[in-house]
Amino acid sequence: MRTDRLETFADGVLAIAATLLILNVDTQIGEHQQDLAHRLLEIWPSYAGYAVSFITIGIIWVNHHGLMTQIERADRIFLFLNVFLLLVVAFIPFPTRLIAEHIQDDGATAAAVSYGINLTLVAVMFNLTWFYASRDARLLRPDHDPNAVKGISRSYRPAPYIYFAMTLVAFLAPVVAVLLYGGFALFWMIESSLFGRSRTQA
Amino acid sequence: MRTDRLETFADGVLAIAATLLILNVDTQIGEHQQDLAHRLLEIWPSYAGYAVSFITIGIIWVNHHGLMTQIERADRIFLFLNVFLLLVVAFIPFPTRLIAEHIQDDGATAAAVSYGINLTLVAVMFNLTWFYASRDARLLRPDHDPNAVKGISRSYRPAPYIYFAMTLVAFLAPVVAVLLYGGFALFWMIESSLFGRSRTQA
Amino acid sequence: MRTDRLETFADGVLAIAATLLILNVDTQIGEHQQDLAHRLLEIWPSYAGYAVSFITIGIIWVNHHGLMTQIERADRIFLFLNVFLLLVVAFIPFPTRLIAEHIQDDGATAAAVSYGINLTLVAVMFNLTWFYASRDARLLRPDHDPNAVKGISRSYRPAPYIYFAMTLVAFLAPVVAVLLYGGFALFWMIESSLFGRSRTQA
Amino acid sequence: MRTDRLETFADGVLAIAATLLILNVDTQIGEHQQDLAHRLLEIWPSYAGYAVSFITIGIIWVNHHGLMTQIERADRIFLFLNVFLLLVVAFIPFPTRLIAEHIQDDGATAAAVSYGINLTLVAVMFNLTWFYASRDARLLRPDHDPNAVKGISRSYRPAPYIYFAMTLVAFLAPVVAVLLYGGFALFWMIESSLFGRSRTQA
Repeated sequence: MRTDRLETFADGVLAIAATLLILNVDTQIGEHQQDLAHRLLEIWPSYAGYAVSFITIGIIWVNHHGLMTQIERADRIFLFLNVFLLLVVAFIPFPTRLIAEHIQDDGATAAAVSYGINLTLVAVMFNLTWFYASRDARLLRPDHDPNAVKGISRSYRPAPYIYFAMTLVAFLAPVVAVLLYGGFALFWMIESSLFGRSRTQA
Repeated sequence: MRTDRLETFADGVLAIAATLLILNVDTQIGEHQQDLAHRLLEIWPSYAGYAVSFITIGIIWVNHHGLMTQIERADRIFLFLNVFLLLVVAFIPFPTRLIAEHIQDDGATAAAVSYGINLTLVAVMFNLTWFYASRDARLLRPDHDPNAVKGISRSYRPAPYIYFAMTLVAFLAPVVAVLLYGGFALFWMIESSLFGRSRTQA
Repeated sequence: MRTDRLETFADGVLAIAATLLILNVDTQIGEHQQDLAHRLLEIWPSYAGYAVSFITIGIIWVNHHGLMTQIERADRIFLFLNVFLLLVVAFIPFPTRLIAEHIQDDGATAAAVSYGINLTLVAVMFNLTWFYASRDARLLRPDHDPNAVKGISRSYRPAPYIYFAMTLVAFLAPVVAVLLYGGFALFWMIESSLFGRSRTQA
Repeated sequence: MRTDRLETFADGVLAIAATLLILNVDTQIGEHQQDLAHRLLEIWPSYAGYAVSFITIGIIWVNHHGLMTQIERADRIFLFLNVFLLLVVAFIPFPTRLIAEHIQDDGATAAAVSYGINLTLVAVMFNLTWFYASRDARLLRPDHDPNAVKGISRSYRPAPYIYFAMTLVAFLAPVVAVLLYGGFALFWMIESSLFGRSRTQA
């Protein structure tokens, strides 16, 4: 099976999951809102949550893009691994809203832990998907770039542990964990922008 | 008519229907939720419903993908059969929410029956779409694989009866029916992953 | 400019507009619904509205598909005519919900008239889009089929008048108008399935 | 990296953001609306907001389309600039709803300013994305049209200043600013339709 419909479907799910995030901001404004200006400033965690999750889904999209460039064909197992990957990615808007609404109240721990578990599962599914395809070059293009393949493997492997560690932090200090989630997304984006080219072309 | 826009449209509807499922989970959390951690554990049927329906839509997508690989062109009747197929697939988020909300109360039977009817209609439409295209090789590629065509026909034909039987079970024992819906999706996915290749390549 | 991104964008908007229709059904079921079975039967107008509008958007998609097969390139005016076409198509879920909710109460006239105005505007925009592209073969493929072009023109031209007439009916007898909307969609689908091939290939 | 998946993802986000705008109109009608006809006339700012924002997103799509025709490949930085561009575009439905709901009450200033800030950020991101790609022809096609490139640069550069100025107007006279937002979208669309061809082909 060719991979083009997988890419269309994945791009669709990722685009929708990212765009639905705005509904989380929207529900923070009641229908007969008094003092709109004040309320708009008050809900700043919603904007931060929107930005971090949008960028995180953007990173997932860039990664999926990079992964697929090395892959030639898909079998059923690979398709279903992608379905599971998309299943956990499409879940992200939910804990994003929990954090935006509860970071300043009693629910902060539950919200930050949910987000951490979700992102840990995304990282696990990314690894399963990639290692299923790349193990013994099972689904790779005949002309795949061995250095790029090694580079992808090296950059994916630690992600589940990092997100799991941040989830543990969330149990003790949810605000710190949330800052780590945002910081890690930002770090990954900058690091991969600056060194991604040299790494995949090395 | 070529089939590429049909695939884009179908992938769009399937991706959106799957991604909208998260809204069902989202509405389970009220706006000023007390004891968020407890509530997040309490709504586990929502997560199960989300996962089963996401995977079911994923299976539909994989099947549609497989079906289209044997088809070369589309006529109007085939396009409208696809519109009807997508119409019933895009309906799935609704009974999914009913099950998630009502599986533990009086509405369990109505919810489980709705889901069963919906999935039965999906299976019926899949058969109508496929047999319209494959009868006398009407829309098949000149180089279609006769064994793959037979394999698809054989795997589609029992599905409406199976879902209809599960719908009947739902009238008597909704929880059992819901377990069957989930179990059947899981079984189909595993069976087709392991034997799909040998069946279509036999 | 090539037309492929126009098709992706149009397919995206059409797929989303169709899939969002299920939210109209969903809001008919309150959060703590008593007697779910009874309520599910009571809201049958929502199912009918969902089906008619989904099929109507499906017809629009098939028509857009057919129109684009004769067109080779897009200029800015054509792109913006398409944006306006999509603008009125993406509006359809709103009057669909109004009909589903109000067909049995005082709001029936307002709801049925809204739907009629919306569909009239869709038909007008389809004509503007098509006649801009086909007038003097402005954007048509060099090898376009003159009979297919004439067939499209002939089938588009009466639509705005038909929908306008049905809108006038809605002022007097909203239920009759709603039956006409559904009947016209069904008629168009069947007629074009049976005679579409011979008409475009004549 | 090739740019096709970027276009699919961008078209997906733009199509969804545009289509979600109808939800803003939808929420203006309560569940048990008395005197539906009167209410439908009363919420005319929602229709205007829907139209202006749909057209604005349409303009963004046409611009993105035009920009990508000159670009051959994408690096990581370009992909992330696009993610940020889409992040601010997908935000548009939110201030659109604020304007539609509050243009006639105390919240008008806050709503109009929010919209202005959002559109200013869109214009800034468009410039960053474009100048990153076109500076020293970094990502341009070898056969890019230097006049088209200059034309794009010339038409993008003033946009952030224009939107910033309109945002300042919003602080003093929100209704005037909202008219300017709509007028500017209309002006841009007409101007680029009439002169776009000559400018890019000059």
